[in-house]
Amino acid sequence: MIPRYSRPAMVALWEPETRFRIWFEIEAHACDALAELGVIPKSAAETIWAKGRNATFDVARIDAIERETKHDVIAFLTHLGEIVGPEARFVHQGMTSSDVLDTCLAVQLSRAADMLIADVDALLATLKHRAHEHKLTPTIGRSHGIHAEPVTFGLKLAQAYAEFSRNRERLVQARAEIATCALSGAVGTFANIDPRVEEHVAKAMGLTVEPVSTQVIPRDRHAMFFAVLGVVASSIERLAIEIRHLQRTEVLEVEEFFSEGQKGSSAMPHKRNPVLTENLTGLARLVRGMVVPALENVALWHERDISHSSVERMIGPDATVTLDFALARLTGVVDKLLVYPANMRKNLDRLGGLVHSQRVLLALTQGGVSREDSYRLVQRNAMRVWRGEGDFLEFLKADPEVTAVLPPEALKPLFDLGYHTKHVDTIFARVFG
Amino acid sequence: MIPRYSRPAMVALWEPETRFRIWFEIEAHACDALAELGVIPKSAAETIWAKGRNATFDVARIDAIERETKHDVIAFLTHLGEIVGPEARFVHQGMTSSDVLDTCLAVQLSRAADMLIADVDALLATLKHRAHEHKLTPTIGRSHGIHAEPVTFGLKLAQAYAEFSRNRERLVQARAEIATCALSGAVGTFANIDPRVEEHVAKAMGLTVEPVSTQVIPRDRHAMFFAVLGVVASSIERLAIEIRHLQRTEVLEVEEFFSEGQKGSSAMPHKRNPVLTENLTGLARLVRGMVVPALENVALWHERDISHSSVERMIGPDATVTLDFALARLTGVVDKLLVYPANMRKNLDRLGGLVHSQRVLLALTQGGVSREDSYRLVQRNAMRVWRGEGDFLEFLKADPEVTAVLPPEALKPLFDLGYHTKHVDTIFARVFG
Amino acid sequence: MIPRYSRPAMVALWEPETRFRIWFEIEAHACDALAELGVIPKSAAETIWAKGRNATFDVARIDAIERETKHDVIAFLTHLGEIVGPEARFVHQGMTSSDVLDTCLAVQLSRAADMLIADVDALLATLKHRAHEHKLTPTIGRSHGIHAEPVTFGLKLAQAYAEFSRNRERLVQARAEIATCALSGAVGTFANIDPRVEEHVAKAMGLTVEPVSTQVIPRDRHAMFFAVLGVVASSIERLAIEIRHLQRTEVLEVEEFFSEGQKGSSAMPHKRNPVLTENLTGLARLVRGMVVPALENVALWHERDISHSSVERMIGPDATVTLDFALARLTGVVDKLLVYPANMRKNLDRLGGLVHSQRVLLALTQGGVSREDSYRLVQRNAMRVWRGEGDFLEFLKADPEVTAVLPPEALKPLFDLGYHTKHVDTIFARVFG
Amino acid sequence: MIPRYSRPAMVALWEPETRFRIWFEIEAHACDALAELGVIPKSAAETIWAKGRNATFDVARIDAIERETKHDVIAFLTHLGEIVGPEARFVHQGMTSSDVLDTCLAVQLSRAADMLIADVDALLATLKHRAHEHKLTPTIGRSHGIHAEPVTFGLKLAQAYAEFSRNRERLVQARAEIATCALSGAVGTFANIDPRVEEHVAKAMGLTVEPVSTQVIPRDRHAMFFAVLGVVASSIERLAIEIRHLQRTEVLEVEEFFSEGQKGSSAMPHKRNPVLTENLTGLARLVRGMVVPALENVALWHERDISHSSVERMIGPDATVTLDFALARLTGVVDKLLVYPANMRKNLDRLGGLVHSQRVLLALTQGGVSREDSYRLVQRNAMRVWRGEGDFLEFLKADPEVTAVLPPEALKPLFDLGYHTKHVDTIFARVFG
Repeated sequence: MIPRYSRPAMVALWEPETRFRIWFEIEAHACDALAELGVIPKSAAETIWAKGRNATFDVARIDAIERETKHDVIAFLTHLGEIVGPEARFVHQGMTSSDVLDTCLAVQLSRAADMLIADVDALLATLKHRAHEHKLTPTIGRSHGIHAEPVTFGLKLAQAYAEFSRNRERLVQARAEIATCALSGAVGTFANIDPRVEEHVAKAMGLTVEPVSTQVIPRDRHAMFFAVLGVVASSIERLAIEIRHLQRTEVLEVEEFFSEGQKGSSAMPHKRNPVLTENLTGLARLVRGMVVPALENVALWHERDISHSSVERMIGPDATVTLDFALARLTGVVDKLLVYPANMRKNLDRLGGLVHSQRVLLALTQGGVSREDSYRLVQRNAMRVWRGEGDFLEFLKADPEVTAVLPPEALKPLFDLGYHTKHVDTIFARVFG
Repeated sequence: MIPRYSRPAMVALWEPETRFRIWFEIEAHACDALAELGVIPKSAAETIWAKGRNATFDVARIDAIERETKHDVIAFLTHLGEIVGPEARFVHQGMTSSDVLDTCLAVQLSRAADMLIADVDALLATLKHRAHEHKLTPTIGRSHGIHAEPVTFGLKLAQAYAEFSRNRERLVQARAEIATCALSGAVGTFANIDPRVEEHVAKAMGLTVEPVSTQVIPRDRHAMFFAVLGVVASSIERLAIEIRHLQRTEVLEVEEFFSEGQKGSSAMPHKRNPVLTENLTGLARLVRGMVVPALENVALWHERDISHSSVERMIGPDATVTLDFALARLTGVVDKLLVYPANMRKNLDRLGGLVHSQRVLLALTQGGVSREDSYRLVQRNAMRVWRGEGDFLEFLKADPEVTAVLPPEALKPLFDLGYHTKHVDTIFARVFG
Repeated sequence: MIPRYSRPAMVALWEPETRFRIWFEIEAHACDALAELGVIPKSAAETIWAKGRNATFDVARIDAIERETKHDVIAFLTHLGEIVGPEARFVHQGMTSSDVLDTCLAVQLSRAADMLIADVDALLATLKHRAHEHKLTPTIGRSHGIHAEPVTFGLKLAQAYAEFSRNRERLVQARAEIATCALSGAVGTFANIDPRVEEHVAKAMGLTVEPVSTQVIPRDRHAMFFAVLGVVASSIERLAIEIRHLQRTEVLEVEEFFSEGQKGSSAMPHKRNPVLTENLTGLARLVRGMVVPALENVALWHERDISHSSVERMIGPDATVTLDFALARLTGVVDKLLVYPANMRKNLDRLGGLVHSQRVLLALTQGGVSREDSYRLVQRNAMRVWRGEGDFLEFLKADPEVTAVLPPEALKPLFDLGYHTKHVDTIFARVFG
Repeated sequence: MIPRYSRPAMVALWEPETRFRIWFEIEAHACDALAELGVIPKSAAETIWAKGRNATFDVARIDAIERETKHDVIAFLTHLGEIVGPEARFVHQGMTSSDVLDTCLAVQLSRAADMLIADVDALLATLKHRAHEHKLTPTIGRSHGIHAEPVTFGLKLAQAYAEFSRNRERLVQARAEIATCALSGAVGTFANIDPRVEEHVAKAMGLTVEPVSTQVIPRDRHAMFFAVLGVVASSIERLAIEIRHLQRTEVLEVEEFFSEGQKGSSAMPHKRNPVLTENLTGLARLVRGMVVPALENVALWHERDISHSSVERMIGPDATVTLDFALARLTGVVDKLLVYPANMRKNLDRLGGLVHSQRVLLALTQGGVSREDSYRLVQRNAMRVWRGEGDFLEFLKADPEVTAVLPPEALKPLFDLGYHTKHVDTIFARVFG
């Protein structure tokens, strides 16, 4: 997580202040439940809330205590004791550190997911808007980087919309998976704490109960969470690369917005580079690189070891902050993207009509020519166009084997652009409902 | 995919014969729809089914044609023409190779998911059975590899059951994601094929319609699929490592079944090694290693490039075959696992009662001692036991600061094992319903 | 490893026949040393060579024995006993299975490295040839996909040559690292075998001695080996992507060779796609995906566990076979690459002279204008060209602030192409010596 | 990079102050060379050094300029102009941003490598010391987690020493690979800058010249660098896991040093957990996870795109800081490791003599029994010991088929521990020289 690729709200989620606040809430809610069960005095629970609710937890003080005890939760509890006074001895009764740590992480990742879902929603809104704006803007479709047949620029964005709609669903599921609470004690047996405490805290913190924990919440949940972030990052990369391609000098169908005062190159003043989408490509690599460590975290030893902790201290903030930033940056890029329909049309016409070759092929077979022969007839004319010898339609008109089946007047309508866009409505209805 | 780690049904799914059979079905169903729409004669569709339904597709012949054309679908269509005769010219009308390839892959991955779900079901049944068998078999819970507090062996298996129940859900979702059909033509615009053909083929093949394709089905779907396989593999690794730990010479609480005639070591005849679970650990690494290539496949260029193809030719079979084998192997290991409750009990008693330290701590605080002081009292007695100087209960009874709060008759009941298993029913009810 | 992406020599290296032959050699050489040391009769060693040297090891028979014993080396030794007769009891004295397995793997990976180095040599020769052919073929250099300044096509290939020269060095080092022999017994102590046997076998098999083994050769060696393969694969991807970009319809500066009879698309007969380099992109992902499993293999438990074995059974062949194929394919692509200098020139001129903007900038600063002002002057004229309003040189000539420093006759020479190629000789001398 | 897992010197290397200092040095050295070549006035170069040598670069000011220009090097140059005055216009002549950025990164990674090499040296010294201390401390060797045959604890550390010696070599090579300088201009042609400037700066900064750059230094160098870090991390994990295993309650042959005041568990006061080595396991996952993004960075587009930049901004600091911390932590763990020879001896004797089974097997074959029969004889007695029925030596003495070949007086010497340590000197000589 570095400032350059961070946004404040997601960063704040991972600040110590936020963490200690959540820890306090977990402990205090647990006290409520313990008091209700008669394990601790109700007055103790009340005092804890009263003293802690608006308290400021002193991060430096907690750090100082941790340096001595080498244990973060004990350090926090010691500091909480300084705030709450003698009633603090009723805090954390029957609990173990991981009860607090893992439930807190569940809260943080759930909130992170909420922000990411909101990010995707903003991106979807922008994609939808721009897709409709360019619903019928013709442009060449390319397979293998080679001109294939016409599409519309709106269709490209509709595809991205559909992809990020799926990513939204995945994030919703990942959030549901990760949002569990464990307050089950040292090895998950509830030996020293009643399961009803867990149920109360879960509800109070907006989580569900972890059915069976082993001091820790099982890490397959987290692995799935980070795997989903890796998929979302890869979708970001896909759209980023599309834009980078379209901004190439030779293509120039779109451009990232280029603000006044911006310099493209210290050496070459004419440059306008797709640096935002290139940056997104790199950020996608970073988020993707965090998937494998998360998968390696699953196989903790026995009821738990703590090897996952350092991994999560890094990838928890890094993956969510980076992805949050990347989604917002991508939304900005799409929103302000400069689109050049005239250049699209120029590129579309570049191949002298070759983009209509399949339609000619089909017309030949429908006219009774075998598929093999049709292919041969089309290809021999297409190759001449490819070599720059002239126009596809003219060559076809001059090929007697072709005109024997398709006379010139039957050939011309095969070169109509509308033929390729006639189902755009259908696709848009499927994607946007 | 290597024979040693393969099972026949999953291997068969990826054989050329299966692929060509699915290709034929896609093409033939498309002909039905095309005939219904009046694009091709109904008699042609009927002939295609009649000639192809029970035909054997000659893999060697198709390979030979592909060597010339360097195009697999064209090779197949050419061979289909040899089988069907002149009506074959109506096959593949308005379609592009990827329509066939991607829809076929969707069918294969869906079927693979079905097999994997069945594998998980078998594993779940075995885990449930063995979990109930050992529901109350006491064993030590370990955090950091160090004895913590008692659990039961059934709880360990219940945890695995819950984890694989989640994996089952993930596979069901991954299957739903991957099961889409695209018959949308060269760049996904349906220029040469009516969307109703896609709808018909989707339904006939048990798939849903891909809302917007771009010659190819978008690869975020496949990335998600393989990511889920990576999570399942990591869960396999977790249980495998648990068993490996429990089989260590010094622990020996369980053993993989060791058949007559098996040799543990060519050099050391006494060895009985957990080789199956070690093997599963390695297989998990393999499946996990396929997640990143699948993620890298998402960002295809423009409407498609073919870089994903070689990746999927390898990881499609490799990941599913390996995971299928691993799940079945794990099921076998759990099913036949030799469990040694006596050794579990021996290990449980090894620490001279230290596993009850937390309960003593809690009793002290409930008796009015501050948390800090309670910790200090417990730790100073615990450290003596740790150094092998004697028994925890005896030390506590002899510590006047302890007995001032907890007299000997109050200390003894704190060393009761049932205290730790009293909520096993609750946990089992959560996990097994 | 799949036939489509395999070459026979590398495949043969991983066949059971090759493995059993190497196993035999290791065992027979060990017998020589044991006989020399007087541990076994010299006649026994002679018999073993005499009977085994030209023997055919029956793979099916060995597999059948393994199915019973569940141990591959014991199965082989049993079969060897069937070939050699009673003297076979002197084979494998004091050795453990891993002595044979790991030393064999070292031999196989060394030979694989030799083949890969030869592959790189072939690629280097081709790159060198084509680099010199196009040493002075001007083409546009691009940063961010945007035209920057002129380079030559030979320089692009020289860069690839330098990169693969580094890869060659890495492979040589990786080979040296992996080529060690361990014959140290059950836990590496030589308890039952004299270290001189290891020294003899190492020398006979062309390996060095592993300084300290623990039944197994340490897996950091293998991790490094596969990491190097991952780097080589990534370099392949780089050159492949360069070619894919240059073959785009709008760029068309090079094309993969397109053979007679080849079909680019089943639907679009005009297509000529860079399918070989797209394929190489995918193969690079595959090899790269094998790096992490190899890294995870390092941390074996204690003196060894066998989790690495399944990983290596797959990635050993897969990574080397795939990379061998990819290197050969890339060599073929470069060798037969169609290069279009006229198109390069056309693209170079596309920006109306903007590629010379930096030189103008420098001339302005050298004429006394501040860097900031120079940048502003150049950018304001460049932006007009960028918007398609005209030619860069003409605009500059008409800008009084520019001509105040650089009169028209001083501007024109700044647009000379030779200015950019004047150091090509220097660079070629650095790269090719 | 998070404070908890960071050490100051490596962190300082990545601070903006360090970066701007290196940038200045590169620019100023380049001015020297440009002045020597007569491109700029000598007085300008002198002024630049005079004003900049001891200047403090104002990070906040540079950031502010960058927010406007969106270009970090231009922001720095602007600020440098504020410091240097009018002569600043001679700075950066003919250079491009990447000349500065990439050469700076080369300097930073070289220095990082130096620190890591020093870290490894410290670790090696500690390993050597402790290896010799326990050169002949007997302990059980384990394969598959199962007791195999005796080794010494010193041998375990000698293995680690040998492994980290290899890692040292790898770091030295990685450092050599990464330490190159590029000052070749916008697309690497030296169009606007003489190659002698690059040669001068390279020498002044302790680098070699990049033979052919393309605005950027090729990223295969960086990929190799980070791959080596991933291998080193995996070796750290191996030793960490060995210690974690040996500290398990049931094994307890070593313990991490446990300071006064440290608390093992908030709930269980008796716990002494191997938290440092567990932490190292997690840190290894993190560093390993950065290898793949570095590999993905290789395939930049054409002469360069900037996608690598965000990746390197994160993994540059993160991988080196984390690995530096991990190496130092591991050194501390090994240095202060509590070793319990008595527990090692107790574990060694646990299997009732079974660890000598191979030696008995060999003695039988040397006595003329076939290998198959010997194996059977040993295994049938070993299995009884395994089942806890008694002592291996006693069973063998009572087995007439055994004593027919090996009478009791011949059996006893086969149970001698010294037999297994007789080659420790040889191995130590190989490892430590």
